[in-house]
Amino acid sequence: MNNRHDDTWRASRRGFLASAAGLTATGTAAVIGSAAAETVEPGELKREFGRQTEPFWGVHQSGILTPQQTHTYFAAFDLITVKRGDVADLLQAWTLAAARMAAGQTALPAEGPFKPAVVPKAGDVADEVPDVAAMAADSGEAMGLRAARLTVTFGFGAGLFVKDGVDRYGLAARRPEALIDLPKFVGDQLVETHTGGDLSVQACADDPQVAFHAVRQLAHLAEGIAHIRWAQSGFLPNAGTGGTPRNLMGFKDGTHNPPVNDPGAMAKYIWAGREGPDWMQGGSYAVFRRIRIALEHWDRVSVAFQEQTMGRAKFSGAPLGRKSEFDVLDLASVDKDGNPVLPENSHVRLATAASNEGAEILRRAYSYNDGVSFTAERWPPWRQGLEYDAGLFFGCYQRDPRTGFVKIFDKMARFDMLNQFVTHVGGGLFACPRGAVPGEFVGQRLFAPA
Amino acid sequence: MNNRHDDTWRASRRGFLASAAGLTATGTAAVIGSAAAETVEPGELKREFGRQTEPFWGVHQSGILTPQQTHTYFAAFDLITVKRGDVADLLQAWTLAAARMAAGQTALPAEGPFKPAVVPKAGDVADEVPDVAAMAADSGEAMGLRAARLTVTFGFGAGLFVKDGVDRYGLAARRPEALIDLPKFVGDQLVETHTGGDLSVQACADDPQVAFHAVRQLAHLAEGIAHIRWAQSGFLPNAGTGGTPRNLMGFKDGTHNPPVNDPGAMAKYIWAGREGPDWMQGGSYAVFRRIRIALEHWDRVSVAFQEQTMGRAKFSGAPLGRKSEFDVLDLASVDKDGNPVLPENSHVRLATAASNEGAEILRRAYSYNDGVSFTAERWPPWRQGLEYDAGLFFGCYQRDPRTGFVKIFDKMARFDMLNQFVTHVGGGLFACPRGAVPGEFVGQRLFAPA
Repeated sequence: MNNRHDDTWRASRRGFLASAAGLTATGTAAVIGSAAAETVEPGELKREFGRQTEPFWGVHQSGILTPQQTHTYFAAFDLITVKRGDVADLLQAWTLAAARMAAGQTALPAEGPFKPAVVPKAGDVADEVPDVAAMAADSGEAMGLRAARLTVTFGFGAGLFVKDGVDRYGLAARRPEALIDLPKFVGDQLVETHTGGDLSVQACADDPQVAFHAVRQLAHLAEGIAHIRWAQSGFLPNAGTGGTPRNLMGFKDGTHNPPVNDPGAMAKYIWAGREGPDWMQGGSYAVFRRIRIALEHWDRVSVAFQEQTMGRAKFSGAPLGRKSEFDVLDLASVDKDGNPVLPENSHVRLATAASNEGAEILRRAYSYNDGVSFTAERWPPWRQGLEYDAGLFFGCYQRDPRTGFVKIFDKMARFDMLNQFVTHVGGGLFACPRGAVPGEFVGQRLFAPA
Repeated sequence: MNNRHDDTWRASRRGFLASAAGLTATGTAAVIGSAAAETVEPGELKREFGRQTEPFWGVHQSGILTPQQTHTYFAAFDLITVKRGDVADLLQAWTLAAARMAAGQTALPAEGPFKPAVVPKAGDVADEVPDVAAMAADSGEAMGLRAARLTVTFGFGAGLFVKDGVDRYGLAARRPEALIDLPKFVGDQLVETHTGGDLSVQACADDPQVAFHAVRQLAHLAEGIAHIRWAQSGFLPNAGTGGTPRNLMGFKDGTHNPPVNDPGAMAKYIWAGREGPDWMQGGSYAVFRRIRIALEHWDRVSVAFQEQTMGRAKFSGAPLGRKSEFDVLDLASVDKDGNPVLPENSHVRLATAASNEGAEILRRAYSYNDGVSFTAERWPPWRQGLEYDAGLFFGCYQRDPRTGFVKIFDKMARFDMLNQFVTHVGGGLFACPRGAVPGEFVGQRLFAPA
């Protein structure tokens, strides 16, 4: 490491960060006290890159109830700073940058569009160029693109509160009970390089470049405070018609979600309430699971078997024994042999609220597609070799994971016929705090003095 | 491996494949003789999935001059069969399936939309289900999607002709001189798991699911004959305006391409002519390079330095010393110190035809984004750790790689300032044969008796 260079750069960047956030990096109290001064009001944002924006500010974070965009880039960060104030500074800077980008702006204000300040001589190598102060406000690959309905959703992993038994930031006492350590489920093959993280950032947009651009700017702002632990791209088909998109298994995915337009249902199932800390009221708990699908295996079995496994018709999406995609499941009917029309171990039967004492989660899954890599299938004929590293980047939101994902998935992990084809290889649980209104930053109440 | 099951399945699949191709799997002569009978005429194709189709049939393969779609899925295959006839059968089946999918159809004709033939009992495991004959014609995830301008472009690697010194298919004498073994360039860090292959398939579409779907169906048809060696997804931003898209470095990429609407220029630079075998006349040689970009490093240097490195203005894309993106490069001007306005070692200066005795290639690059992985940067400060596994999936077409990519890149690999930020970590060279007209399959003339 060239520490001289790095230190120089870091000092400059921290100045930049503080400047962007309207602070002088003097600690948490100052953060909160001075936050309003430089706050960007939604109405003031210029639409540099066109329309198609989703609102960033609000009591709930965006990207949860937002109709799903076609692309996502998710990143989990590990915090490397020892200072609580750094974390608050970072969230402040992230909030303002995310708000700007959601409105189609560069992450930070720039002095004109990428105006070079110092022209180095040909032959200089990058690290000897002195004009770090002229560093771009933004890496620039979103210039000319629309905001593409960008949303950025922040979450806190257990490591923000306690890591390896250490209360790094004096927040251990504020860890919500609902932010549990996820249990090991039957069949889990989680790998470290795709699991966990102290902070999560999920960008979603109708353009893959816009989604990645957003996380990249935030990662850049985090230099010296946090770094990416793992990341995952995801996509949906450009369905266009507004119908339920199909996942890589060829089945419609996301049919059964609670009604996002029903505030009562959302309050009951999705938003954290008074049972937890104030900074989580209006927030939600996100569970992500990187689920590798043995597509080669799936493609070899009959559609009939696929349908029995899922519990839905492949073409229409209708539950077995029903006519239309959105018909309620028929849990009671039996065939002439007395067997359930909707098999006991079918995916949708095991997932539905009626099979889980009313448990509901809001699914927001993307497909992922990372080429091929060596793998060993979980079930006969136990093929080993290069197979698609593709599947589902599952995400879901709930008021409490204990009565949401854990409640539902514990049984599914044991009995779901779909497990013959899918393996959970990564993921995490994150407490996504309530949203910020102009003048606040996301998570600010967590950092307020007790 | 459960061989009983696999053999049963394979026999069934091969019958399926032969049926789809209108043959009885009796060898190459029969392939060519009977190909016309079941040929799908473009005009007959139903538009099951909507419009937005690119023509598949023609003297040139599609996906070369086609205006770039927003997504790609590339796969390189290794041939595992010992039979020449198998390879011809496969190309026949691939041709028909690709033509169908380009028109928005399922890969193979189906008996109704995914009609289940046998309903297995609940509790059956997939491999015990007997109804392989009812296997879906298609994995189904493109149902309801548009054709999304899908193109599928096929190529032949050196291994089709000679592999480990063995002439597996009696084709060694037909290897074109231009299908060289690419030299090792300065700085190459090609990894086996992203390099080479006997056959290449590149699907491009305006929908990532459509592109992957196409390759997946072809891989399924290849079972027992060829398997995927490596694969790569790529994307462009949804520029919308038709402007030159920016790559992940934030610069416009692809500005300097020969004019695709000029048949003379294409004949001169892109299409193989009478200098080679007849099956390549009208074809083109594709070079792919998986280029990892040290984005974290790039994001730390000033825009001024980035511009000197690229030789273009970041915002406008204009060559240094010029006003507009499409202005010709100013190779002559010097500044007050006598140094070139466009640095000698800038990327565009080294790449341009005038610096390479007129060499031209048709660039068709995508960005790629595979999360983060451990890497060591090539240049000071030699950072090591988790960094973005993201960059450029570069692809280009030319009449002869010796006078195209190799000619241009040999010098760039040594002198290009951009090399501080980019590392070639995979790729390949593939002879993309002339296109097929209805009644032919892609590469048919290569397999014709001498």
